[in-house]
Amino acid sequence: MGKVLIIGCGGVASVAIHKCCQNSAVFEEICIASRTKAKCDALKEKLEPTTKTKITTAEVDANDVQALIALIESVSPDVVLNLALPYQDLTIMDACLATKTHYVDTANYEPEDTAKFEYKWQWAYRERFEKAGITALLGSGFDPGVTGVFSAYALKHYFDEIHYIDILDCNAGDHGYPFATNFNPEINIREVSAKGSYWENGHWVETEPMEIKRVYNFPEIGEKDMYLLHHEELESLALNIPGIKRIRFFMTFGQSYLTHLKCLENVGMTSIEPIDFEGHKIVPLQFLKAVLPDPSSLGPRTKGKTNIGCIFQGKKDGQDRVHYIYNVCDHQECYREVGSQAVAYTTGVPAMIGAMMLLTGRWNTPGVHNIEEFDPDPFMEALNRWGLPWKESAAPDLVD
Amino acid sequence: MGKVLIIGCGGVASVAIHKCCQNSAVFEEICIASRTKAKCDALKEKLEPTTKTKITTAEVDANDVQALIALIESVSPDVVLNLALPYQDLTIMDACLATKTHYVDTANYEPEDTAKFEYKWQWAYRERFEKAGITALLGSGFDPGVTGVFSAYALKHYFDEIHYIDILDCNAGDHGYPFATNFNPEINIREVSAKGSYWENGHWVETEPMEIKRVYNFPEIGEKDMYLLHHEELESLALNIPGIKRIRFFMTFGQSYLTHLKCLENVGMTSIEPIDFEGHKIVPLQFLKAVLPDPSSLGPRTKGKTNIGCIFQGKKDGQDRVHYIYNVCDHQECYREVGSQAVAYTTGVPAMIGAMMLLTGRWNTPGVHNIEEFDPDPFMEALNRWGLPWKESAAPDLVD
Repeated sequence: MGKVLIIGCGGVASVAIHKCCQNSAVFEEICIASRTKAKCDALKEKLEPTTKTKITTAEVDANDVQALIALIESVSPDVVLNLALPYQDLTIMDACLATKTHYVDTANYEPEDTAKFEYKWQWAYRERFEKAGITALLGSGFDPGVTGVFSAYALKHYFDEIHYIDILDCNAGDHGYPFATNFNPEINIREVSAKGSYWENGHWVETEPMEIKRVYNFPEIGEKDMYLLHHEELESLALNIPGIKRIRFFMTFGQSYLTHLKCLENVGMTSIEPIDFEGHKIVPLQFLKAVLPDPSSLGPRTKGKTNIGCIFQGKKDGQDRVHYIYNVCDHQECYREVGSQAVAYTTGVPAMIGAMMLLTGRWNTPGVHNIEEFDPDPFMEALNRWGLPWKESAAPDLVD
Repeated sequence: MGKVLIIGCGGVASVAIHKCCQNSAVFEEICIASRTKAKCDALKEKLEPTTKTKITTAEVDANDVQALIALIESVSPDVVLNLALPYQDLTIMDACLATKTHYVDTANYEPEDTAKFEYKWQWAYRERFEKAGITALLGSGFDPGVTGVFSAYALKHYFDEIHYIDILDCNAGDHGYPFATNFNPEINIREVSAKGSYWENGHWVETEPMEIKRVYNFPEIGEKDMYLLHHEELESLALNIPGIKRIRFFMTFGQSYLTHLKCLENVGMTSIEPIDFEGHKIVPLQFLKAVLPDPSSLGPRTKGKTNIGCIFQGKKDGQDRVHYIYNVCDHQECYREVGSQAVAYTTGVPAMIGAMMLLTGRWNTPGVHNIEEFDPDPFMEALNRWGLPWKESAAPDLVD
């Protein structure tokens, strides 16, 4: 069917690449490019014996627009799938514009020096992509991503109007350590110490960090504490779901996880200010990372499930209606299939499907678009086929 | 009256030395000796203008019996007050035996490589001290120390038989940090992770670490969580209080303190195994100590009180009787008086008083003795006079 250039070779990219290689009829050829070509080569070597997909690799600095343009020109892909770092979105979009190549990503642009998740920088490319006749599909991960597809699907099939959306992201995985992080603990701390916000009646309502806590009984998991956070898809759904009155995002955190994080913060172990220690300058957070379990060691030992989904409330044929669409994913099954646990899996699979939607022409509307703007049906079918089957309930527990 | 050689110049020694200098009629001359003579000289320089006590200083390695003998011979003290490290008790006792000098300490001998608090090593000197005609007074701090004096006093004045003793040690000091330690966090961790034990009906009952928790409403402080621990005076009181049925020791720990300690232990920050970090071998516990507030900075900012005492239950004239004797000490008042907070103060004052009891001949029974074996009255008077006034209650709350 076609050729995709995948930029990035981290955990999510590895899942997306595994899934492309399972789907060779669509992904006839892929080129994996990253700053470290050896990582791309290692993945190519692992996957080549298992797939009909032709794999090539390249080295590229995703901050360098000219290097990206040269790479795209030499590879000639139909679609660029950006799985690099969020602050590299704009350079890659620039290169796609210059080469008139479709663009897909999973996380919105974030300037390297702020923690501000906003679409404004990428939405500013709308007119240029439209004029170039190419499509940019923004946020094709799980959340954002599948949560937008669920929203579009609910609106298409179950509602005349959706008034309330609650997005619930539960990771009930257990790696057996009292405390460990999948990634930089600094990002975790920023997440739990940032103010929350939700969209209501046409404007943002800001909350104190972790101010709004709920307990939810997740299907196939059970009761978990969850906290209201800001999340990027709130911004696009508020715009794209007509008649919406309120959208909230909740993520589960265990009390033990939060307590460890807070204690480490309290004693100064998460500080990024170097201290003098035995004649060396040492950053406490760097030392903490060295003491904690290596994140790459967590995959094989993480057990349990994730459950991510949306609860919709609105009207159909004049009647009140409630609908819940969600996916349950098992950490160990993911690890057995692609060597990554469910957090990477649930993002990598939708990234592959987003690229497939553009590659097959199922989605083809020039411009810069969030995922809920497209017909959800082929994406929902693909989720069932490619490892993230979804379930529905017409009578879920509601969130207060 | 006489001359005392004080070995050690740490926090407790500093308090004892301040108090000796307030009590020049008894302590006509003191010699302060430690491994670091400069510390002794600094204290001498600070105190000399304020006192009639003659102060000299010396350098000594308290592990070296010959050096200790030479020092005692040159100083010719009436009493040696040992405020060095607990694993140096035996070398100092050996030197006292060789020079026929009275001996006082505050904490029982502990081999450097174990955490075993037992009197057996020091009790083995009984016959030799008796034959030499000198007195060794063991455990003249607060607990052990004042708790033994309270027990002897209760038995002398209020009871025919004491059946139950509960020793309650409450430190309600607040230094304003989420977490900090007065000393090596490793010792704290050992304390809360060691098995507890108490004496009942003639034998030891062992508990899981922190298994027995009670809430007690401490006079002048209020309700605090406290935990049953093993403590060294249980061993001697079980022997010296006839008819005793049960002795327990409880210490307060705040939930926040315990949580921080547990989290730090969980993530490996309290480990003493070095890790490789940026080309250096670094011990996590050492790094943690470097990140935490400097213990010497806590004194001026610690507010609140300590309350340490004993609740006695028994019989008097055939009637059931309950009696509570305790001392309340204020961190800030101690700091203003001697530049140390209440934890050091409550140990240093009884050390001075113990030395005074031997120096004045009020206590003079050749052999090796625990503090409750002596007449408590002069010690109780001295507590009131020298900064640790005690209070009594005949109707205290009891511990379940």
